[in-house]
This record gives sequence, structure tokens and C-alpha cells, in this order.
Amino acid sequence: VQKIDSTEIAANIYRDLQAIRLQAPLVHNITNFVVMQLTANALLALGASPIMAHALEELADIIKIADSLVLNIGTIDANWLETMKQAIQLAKQKNIPIILDPVGAGASKFRTDSIQQLLTIASPTIIRGNASEINALVSLGVTKGVDSILTPEQAKPAAQELIKKHNCTIVISGATDFCLAKDSVLRVKNGSALMAKVTGMGCTASALIAAFCAINPDAFAAATHAMTVMSITGEIAASKANGPGSFQLHFYDVLYNLSHQTILEHIDIE
Amino acid sequence: VQKIDSTEIAANIYRDLQAIRLQAPLVHNITNFVVMQLTANALLALGASPIMAHALEELADIIKIADSLVLNIGTIDANWLETMKQAIQLAKQKNIPIILDPVGAGASKFRTDSIQQLLTIASPTIIRGNASEINALVSLGVTKGVDSILTPEQAKPAAQELIKKHNCTIVISGATDFCLAKDSVLRVKNGSALMAKVTGMGCTASALIAAFCAINPDAFAAATHAMTVMSITGEIAASKANGPGSFQLHFYDVLYNLSHQTILEHIDIE
Amino acid sequence: VQKIDSTEIAANIYRDLQAIRLQAPLVHNITNFVVMQLTANALLALGASPIMAHALEELADIIKIADSLVLNIGTIDANWLETMKQAIQLAKQKNIPIILDPVGAGASKFRTDSIQQLLTIASPTIIRGNASEINALVSLGVTKGVDSILTPEQAKPAAQELIKKHNCTIVISGATDFCLAKDSVLRVKNGSALMAKVTGMGCTASALIAAFCAINPDAFAAATHAMTVMSITGEIAASKANGPGSFQLHFYDVLYNLSHQTILEHIDIE
Repeated sequence: VQKIDSTEIAANIYRDLQAIRLQAPLVHNITNFVVMQLTANALLALGASPIMAHALEELADIIKIADSLVLNIGTIDANWLETMKQAIQLAKQKNIPIILDPVGAGASKFRTDSIQQLLTIASPTIIRGNASEINALVSLGVTKGVDSILTPEQAKPAAQELIKKHNCTIVISGATDFCLAKDSVLRVKNGSALMAKVTGMGCTASALIAAFCAINPDAFAAATHAMTVMSITGEIAASKANGPGSFQLHFYDVLYNLSHQTILEHIDIE
Repeated sequence: VQKIDSTEIAANIYRDLQAIRLQAPLVHNITNFVVMQLTANALLALGASPIMAHALEELADIIKIADSLVLNIGTIDANWLETMKQAIQLAKQKNIPIILDPVGAGASKFRTDSIQQLLTIASPTIIRGNASEINALVSLGVTKGVDSILTPEQAKPAAQELIKKHNCTIVISGATDFCLAKDSVLRVKNGSALMAKVTGMGCTASALIAAFCAINPDAFAAATHAMTVMSITGEIAASKANGPGSFQLHFYDVLYNLSHQTILEHIDIE
Repeated sequence: VQKIDSTEIAANIYRDLQAIRLQAPLVHNITNFVVMQLTANALLALGASPIMAHALEELADIIKIADSLVLNIGTIDANWLETMKQAIQLAKQKNIPIILDPVGAGASKFRTDSIQQLLTIASPTIIRGNASEINALVSLGVTKGVDSILTPEQAKPAAQELIKKHNCTIVISGATDFCLAKDSVLRVKNGSALMAKVTGMGCTASALIAAFCAINPDAFAAATHAMTVMSITGEIAASKANGPGSFQLHFYDVLYNLSHQTILEHIDIE
């Protein structure tokens, strides 16, 4: 069992947050139509600089200036898969962090196959999904749409297999978020059930991870820092909200104003 | 003249709402870029589970797990029309409810033709549009953009013709919403003028109808229940709002918290 | 140095605002996926009528009923460029105002080239961008993503060159917005730093300009009126906000309720 020093991690999270706010890393998102605006707003509230670009004609130019890349298959089709295949190769060549979000993996053979094709081209730095999605990348389980029918705990064996094969960090989102790497595991217990009542919270988490990866070369640390920021923000926003509408407003306000003190008071990891 | 028992209908609406919250039916949306996020959030606030998917490669898989299908032509092009044509056929084969939203029908020959092509493949369970859109499906009237220049009353003959031809339920949205089927008509008088000052409220109505259809096999009842929930939610949200920004926040909060008591106190149908 | 009469300009702005609220001009947007919803909501809150349509099959029909056209390259690809090329030609033939928003020009050769291709087909009525984008249309400067690394003042020479070549009005957005035409220049000093922490504020400005152009044939006046409305709205919304989430809510509420008195009290131009 690892000994977790929450105070030290809170200090490291805030150090990363300050670096993002100062450097405004450029996060290149090839993501789905449903969440593009939400993702951009979350990255801006965090202090990063988002760009959404999917044209094959400009991929090389955009990745040249990008500090990290998010690939999110939420509304993927054959054209966007082609874009993602070229993007993951270019990002690997430039050696910037790659965050893969396998939205709805398992819901269709096409989604599961698309992820496999991307994984064959290059191993991502971090994969973040819910338990059903992570599981579908290994076994051929069927998920119901984009919501998970497994608990994060149940997807741990699949995560371990992905880590072995791709030498990457895995984040399994859920009531408790699991961050896993070769010899590390950390659980983020912050959050709120209301986060599942707003679209794109998982996609937002992946984008925040990309921002943290852009300024912190330790992928496991970056992932845990991002997930803690995400979950604390969601927890505080939910405590101020009367429902998913006001939750969304508070989410961006809380994220924008997040202080060292607030992180320290709320952090609940093990 | 039908005798309407508001108390009984309010009870039936709440029964359906509880079923949606319990079963979280999967609503497959092939919809426009403008409203995807809003539609997803409305379905989540209602208690349903949204999925947006348009790739030909995964249509069969997604419709296999879907409980109902929304086709919305708000930003349609030739590729998306092809997707919708295959989707309506697959949904008909699986016999799940199909809700057609003819956004901007009449504004271009392409939109009107697209709807005709879809109607030739299969009759939808429910068509919901504003008066100009419903009218354009029958006569070849010209609409100004996506806003109606007719009153719901003026589109009733077109609605009757569509009902005869497609054996479907028609919803004409407006200040008063008309729900029409072969031998039934019901007017939902709830709502607010502020609903027209936020994009995608019509599209949201169509998505809510799809959720109610997924758990209630009586299409006319499902349509009236969804429109009543929509209109009461909009009316209460508007009463709390200072403009379209705060309206949107309250809309999701009110929808999420909607109780039997609130429905009973506000329902205004005839 | 021009003599600016703020009181007179405030009266003219309000006159235009009333005309928009009364006539609800139809603004045709061919814009990016990230901001479509935001743009539609801003146009609705202003009193205009938005339509988003990109299918080649319906361009001629939509432009036939449109009062102005916005071309925004934020998520452009080869297909959307083809649409924009046909749209700019059709809008020129019909002689409706064309507003060009060169999002991310300079960030990739493809974006810069796309703009050049559009400018070769027809000169827009107004081009609005941040300083880096305006600069990239003339020199081949490189920008970092979609955020500007220049001040508006630094892009003035590029703006003058564009005005000479295209006989158009240029708006350079920034902390202070510059509106420039052949013999005119006006600075709008309203606004708030919080506007840069929400995605799509620049795109919203371009859409508002299109609405003002639709009812005011004087392009320079329309641009300055739109930018003043935009900046006053942002300034008031920011003063009520706790962060970017609540800013967005207040932005639409303030825009919807904007009065002559409020414009008069806040206008800060020179």
C-alpha cells in the first residue's frame, strides 16, 4: 500500500495549475460535436488555450504548435477516424502527450475497431474512459450507449492489460476515479453524482488531463492532478447547484477561481 | 369536444417521468450541430440516456441498443441525409419509435426534398415542427429560415393530411402546442415567449418526445406528456429568468427537479 | 483627429438595435462547430434570426432569403471551404453584406490559404479578427493557435492594406477594439478581460456585426455599433459575474435587455 501525502499532492497540483495559467499551453482537440464548446470553455477556465482542428490539410501545422493532443471518438465517422490516425502519428513523431478518450467504445464494432486502429499506430500517453469503455478496449464487452454499466473496480484488470501493452497511464472515471500506471495507483474520491447529469464531463476530464500533461512530463502525476482538479471542481459546483443547469455555470466559475486553499480543503485521495 | 381530465393526465405524465428516470431509455439522436449539446443535456436532465451517432459504419449497432430514434435535419447535408435514410429503415425494422424534426422545412428545396425522401422510406411515429415546417411537408410553402410565419392553427389541415397518409402523431409547436392524431387533439397552453429566444427549444421538445415514446407505447399520449413537461418546464424557467441566459440555466434545473405536485399545479391543457 | 459624439452614436446604436428587434433579419452562418450554439443564442438575444446551413444543395435557396452572411473558418476543412467559396459568390451576386471571420488565420497554411481563396472570389463587407489573424491575412506571420500574440495597434498597417485592396471595413478585436475603414477609425474601449475566458466571443462579435449590417447599409457604422453593443454587454456581464460560467449567463441576459439608457451610460469610444 502506497502512503499518500495529500498536502504534498495538493501543493503539486497547485504548482501545475499555476504553470498552466502562466504558460497557457495549446491543447489540440480532435473531439466530438456534442462537447466541443464545453471542452473549449473548460480549457479556457483552467487557463489553457484550446484549438479544435480536424482538417487533414492543416494537421501537421497545428500539431507543430500544439503542446498536447486529445483524440475523442464521441461522434467519430470514417473521415474523422482518418484524421485521428494521421494526428496520432504526427503527435508521436513530435513527442507531445496524446490523450485518448474512447467514448462509447463497446457500443459499436466501429468504435471499438477505430480505437484498435489508433492503438496500432501509436501508444497514447494516457487513456481516460468510464469502466465500460476501458473494459471494451480489451475484452469485447458490450456497453449500453455512452454510460457505464460497470464499476471502475471491475475495469481494473483491463486497465492493467492496457498499461502492460502500451506503457501508458489509464484513468477510469466513475464515482471514484482510478488513476493507474505500471507501479502506481491512486483513487480520487471527490466528485458528485450531478456530474453524470451534464453531458461531456468525461470529455472535459480528458481535456484537462491534456492541459496538465502539457506542462508536467510525469504522465501519472499529470493525470492524477487533472482528475483531482476536475473532481473537486465538480464537487464544489454541485454543492452550489440546484440542478444540472446551475451546476454547469458553477463548474466553470469554480474551475476559474480554484485556489491552493480550496484544493487543500477538499482533496480526498488514497 | 373531448373531455380532458388534467388531474389524470398529470398523474400519467408523472408515471412516465418516473419510468424514464428509472429505466434511462437510450435515445439515439441524428441531429444538427447547433443543438447537440443542448439536446444531450435536456435528455440527461429528464433522466434519459442520450447518444449522438451518425457514422454509417455503426448505425446498425447503435440502433440495436437504442430505445428510440430522433432524426433532425437542422444542419443536414447530402452525407447526413444518407445516414438518416439508413437509420429510419433500420429503426423501422427494429420497430422502435421514430421522431422526425423537419427543422427549416420549406426554407430550401433540399430540406423539403430530404424530408420527402425519408417519409417515402418509412412513416415516423411522430413528426414535431413549428407551423411553417409542418405546412411545408404538405403544401410547398416557403418559410423564412427556421422561425414560423404561421400560427399552429393554420397548420392543422397539413397536420391532418400527414396523419391520414402516415398514420402518425403530429405536434405543431407554438405559443400553444397542438398534439394531433387520427381521432385525438390536445392543446398544451403552457410555455413562455422566452423559449423562442433560446436556440434549440424545438429540437429539445423532439428529443423529450423520443424519451417518452421509448417508455410509453401510446404515441399520442407520449407526445402530449412530453410537450406538457417541456412547456411547464419552460414556463417555470421563464418565471425565474431575467433573460435567455438565465432561462437556459433554470430550464435544466426545473426539468431535473420536476415533481408530480409541480406538474399538477401548472398543467394547462385542453 | 475625428470628433466623436458619444451621445449621438449611442442614439444611432439604439435605433439600429430597435430595427433588429423589429425586423429580425435572417443571418446565415457558415461557421465552426465550437460556437454554433453560442452564435445562434447571441443572435436570438439581440433580436435577429439565425440560420446555420452549409449544404451545397441548399446554399442558393438559403442565401435567397438571408439578409447577411457570416463566413467563419474556425473548424474549416476542404468540404466547408468549398461551401464557403460558393456562398461568398452567391452573397455577392445578391449583394447582401458578407462578414468574414478568419479564425486562426496564420495558425496553419491551410487557413491562411483558405482566406486568400475566399478573398479572390469576392471582397467581404467586413473582416473581423484579432490582431494576429488580421496580420496573417497580409504578412505571413505565424500565430499560436486562435489567440492573438499581437496588440490591435500592431495590426493596423495590415488592416490599412486590406481596406485599400478590398474596400472593406476591418475590425481588430482586443482589449480595445479598432474599427477601421478608408477614412474612418474608431476605438471601442468597453469590454472585460473575462471575455477572453469564454470560447466564441470573437465569433459572436462577427455574428452581431452581420445583424447590424443587415439593417444598416453603412458598413462602418454597423461594425462600430455592433462592437459597442458587444463590448458594453461583455463589460456589464463581467461586472455581475464570478467567473466565465456566470459571465456567459449574464451576457445573454444583458444583451436581451439592453436599453438606450444602458448604452448611453456605458459607451466609451474614441
